[in-house]
Formats: sequence, C-alpha cells, structure tokens
Amino acid sequence: MAQLFRQMTVCGVGLIGGSLALIARRAGVVGKVVGLGRSQANLDVAVDRGMIDIATRDPVEAARGADLIVLAVPIQTMRATLEKMIEHSAPDAVVTDVGSVKQYVVRELESLITGKRSLVAAHPVAGKETTGAAAADPALFRDRRVILTPSAKSTPDAINKIEQLWDETGACVEMMDAATHDAILARSSHLPQVVSSVLAAALNTEKIGDKLAAEYGAGGLRDTTRLASSSWEMWRDIFVTNREAIAAALKLYGGTWAEFQRAVEAGDMNGVEKIFNRGREMREKIR
Amino acid sequence: MAQLFRQMTVCGVGLIGGSLALIARRAGVVGKVVGLGRSQANLDVAVDRGMIDIATRDPVEAARGADLIVLAVPIQTMRATLEKMIEHSAPDAVVTDVGSVKQYVVRELESLITGKRSLVAAHPVAGKETTGAAAADPALFRDRRVILTPSAKSTPDAINKIEQLWDETGACVEMMDAATHDAILARSSHLPQVVSSVLAAALNTEKIGDKLAAEYGAGGLRDTTRLASSSWEMWRDIFVTNREAIAAALKLYGGTWAEFQRAVEAGDMNGVEKIFNRGREMREKIR
Repeated sequence: MAQLFRQMTVCGVGLIGGSLALIARRAGVVGKVVGLGRSQANLDVAVDRGMIDIATRDPVEAARGADLIVLAVPIQTMRATLEKMIEHSAPDAVVTDVGSVKQYVVRELESLITGKRSLVAAHPVAGKETTGAAAADPALFRDRRVILTPSAKSTPDAINKIEQLWDETGACVEMMDAATHDAILARSSHLPQVVSSVLAAALNTEKIGDKLAAEYGAGGLRDTTRLASSSWEMWRDIFVTNREAIAAALKLYGGTWAEFQRAVEAGDMNGVEKIFNRGREMREKIR
Repeated sequence: MAQLFRQMTVCGVGLIGGSLALIARRAGVVGKVVGLGRSQANLDVAVDRGMIDIATRDPVEAARGADLIVLAVPIQTMRATLEKMIEHSAPDAVVTDVGSVKQYVVRELESLITGKRSLVAAHPVAGKETTGAAAADPALFRDRRVILTPSAKSTPDAINKIEQLWDETGACVEMMDAATHDAILARSSHLPQVVSSVLAAALNTEKIGDKLAAEYGAGGLRDTTRLASSSWEMWRDIFVTNREAIAAALKLYGGTWAEFQRAVEAGDMNGVEKIFNRGREMREKIR
C-alpha cells in the first residue's frame, strides 16, 4: 500500500486512537506516528506495543510536521486540543476525529481549519468497556462501520485519503450527513446506554426484605446492564453534545414502554405479545 | 453419593429438565430416569445423550413407579400435566418443578398432592437462549442459584432430598417464601426481559431517512437486546402468572426512567450523572 500521510499524530492513544495507530503503522500507510497523551505510563505502553514512533505530552511538539491529525480525545476537549496544534501542523494537514457525535464536532472544529488544511469528521462504530493503549486491538474495527460526515471543509482528496486509511482496518466505510449520523446513533447507541444505565440504577439498592434483587439475576441481567459500567467521562460529552437527538430517542423508547406497561396492567396479553414479537423481529434483523 | 430416588420422571426434557436429568443420572443419585416429552425427535436426542433411560409421550406410563416427578414444562401446563400423573406415581412421591414463578405454581399444584406425597417448588436461576435436549449442559447450574420455596405440602424429608439433588449440580441452594421469590425475580429477571424487548421493539422499524437505525449499533446494542430473542411461549406464562409483581417492577423502572428523561430534557447534567453513577455502582455489585 502506498503511503497516504507522512506523519500521523494521534491525540489520545487509547482504545480507539491506539488501535488505529497500530493498524496504520503496520500497514505502512503513514510514514511515522506521533502519540500525544496526558499519561506518560499510557504513552510508554503505546511505544512498547509498537503503536507509535514518538510519544509526547506537548501538543505543539506533537503537531510539528503532522499532515494527519487524529483527534481521539473526549468530544468536548477536541477544540481546545486542536487550537494548540493547528498552526504547527503541515500546511496541507488533514484533521479527522473518532467522536460519537458529529454535528457538534464539525461545528466546533470547522473554524480552526485554515489555509489548505481540511477536516473529515469520522466515527468508527466500535468499542469495548476497556480503555487505554493496553486495550488497543488491530482487529477492533474489522467488519464494523465507520461513518464519515464530510462538511464544507472536506476536500475530495482528504475524504479519499481518510477513506483509504479506514479501509486498512477492515471496516466498512459509509458517508452520511452529520445530522443523520447523530439521529441514528442517538437510537442505536446512546439509547441502549440509557436503557442499560437506568435499569442498573433502578436495581442498585432495590431490596425485597433483606435481599438485594440484583444479586438474583442470571446472564440476562448481566447482558442487559453491561453498558452501565461505561465511563461517565465519555458519556457526559455525548449527553451534552447530542442532547436533542437523545431526547427524541428517549421519547421513542418511552412510547413503546408506556404501551407495554398499559398492556401488562390491563392483562392484555395480545398487546404484550405484539411488542414482544416486534422485539424478536428486530433481533433477527441484526443477527 | 447414596441414591435419593428410585425413579426420577422428568416432564419436559429440554434445556433445564435435560441438564438436571443428565447430572442426576451421572451422579447416581437416582435409580433410573424416565423422560416425558411431546416430540419423539427430542426424546431420541435425550436417550442418545444418556440423559434418560426410558422415553415416553404417555404421562401415565411416565408416572408409574416415579418417586420423583420434575415438572420442566411451561408454567401454565404444569397442573394439567401433573393431574394425569399423580395417582400413578409412588405413594411417597416428591413433586418438584423448575418454573420461574413460584406463588402460582404452588397454588396450582398443592391441591393435587395427595396422601404421603409432597411438593417442593424450585427455581434454578439459569438459562440460555437455546432450547431442547440438544442444548442440555451438565455445567448449566454450576455456581448459579437455585431457590426452593417450601409450602404446606413440603415435608422436611422431601425438602432435604431436593436440596441434595440440586447440590449435585454445583448450584447454590437457598430457601425463601414464594412471594419474596416472585417479587425478586420480577426485578432481576422479568424486568430486564421487558427492558430488552421494549428497546428492540422500539427500534424494529425505526428509520432515519432510508436507513434502519438498528443496523448502526455495535456490541452494546447487541448485548442490551439479547434477551429480546427469547421464546414467547415461556414468557407468556411468566407475564400471566406473575403479573402483579411485574407491574410493580415496571413502576420501579418507569420512575428512574422518568427521572433520567427529565434531567436530559432540562440539560441537568448533574442529575444525569447521578443516575449514571448509580448504574455503575450496581454493576460493581454483581461483577
């Protein structure tokens, strides 16, 4: 594979940023990889695992010579991170990100993209509950979706290169506008997080007599509440930056919930069965 | 291990009944095992896998000589099944079951327990999405809970024997009254099923433009909707026979849900964080 970028600078060498760096470096599509991080210990892991050539905690140093900047930091810190870097990056640098919300990211970053630089916002729909460079995995994106949301600052050449970069990961790349992305992800990703957290929260201290109900669940309770262990740091940013789309997704769920609750309370088993079957139908679609 | 029963008759040689039969027969705690089923093909699998000595589709034949009857059929068919069998069973027969609801089962079966016979209702809190004798697994109950709900028809000797039988499976046996059981399981098992089915149902046909939102989920959506693929046959019986406790569990969830929704709509991130953290706390408890 021909080289796409001379220097890739990854801001945030965690699960997502670290996995992408590892893949790009191994595939030889980038000349060298610089990792920008907050924790020296995590950067050391990234160097040891061969994800990055150079580690730094200084954004200016990280930016120097970069013709690809990958923002893999929490959504609400992307702008401040890029602000310190942009003028030190190559004059033709491409900026991309891996955030779970896209309208906010495009809005925040666009004004920083000066000169011949360009922005191609991206979201790899993949993840695990684990974090950090130690969790990085070159198979993380295989057969997953990566959504690019081109905007006014995306040149065709930059879009093309970011698409080729993601092709190396084995992911399926798809383009859509940022608003569509945010509405879809509010339903397919942010809503399940809320449903899971609310279930876990409702059971947190729920006792019958002296017995904690949550201790009497089997694999089903475990599966359904798995997301509840996610990190608040990441989700705070998602709730803040995609609030309206999430509120709409909550209404969607709330409507079906109310329908179900009414059917149970009325002893209307046909009504309960209909919702149950719609749920099974959905599972057959995503099998 | 000494023999506990001369003949164990398992009604319904599926995942749960078949697994218990396999363990009891291997451990030598039962003299012989008779399997009662509806499908000859499934009974043939059970014989081939060494779960049962004799297979039959005739309840009277199955009952003859049984001093242990295990009802592993759907909850609402237990009474009709036992009614055909009880007078043909041994005069000191112990009847037990594996149903997920206990007040209803005890109420339905108690009046059929005549003479020196006894009833010890039981619920192994274990399961998979798979069904049938082919799915039976001798490790299914290991480290899981089995809840016994003794009632007026449970003699100390019968309770003791059923406890010993379950000890062979590696499960942790616990006693409680049936009402407590039903209230706990409504929260720890029936509620997650509803939460999962409602999420899957809400997303079943939800589109943004021409894109089905459900197709853009990752592992989190998959985990949270896994239970939605469960069989309606089993769950219909649970919804019908534990309706009041389930309605109370739905109120519990609905309250936390409403609290979360209000916080998101008001942009009250402290409120959102509090619920999120309660959810993470619960996960730490059941780890």
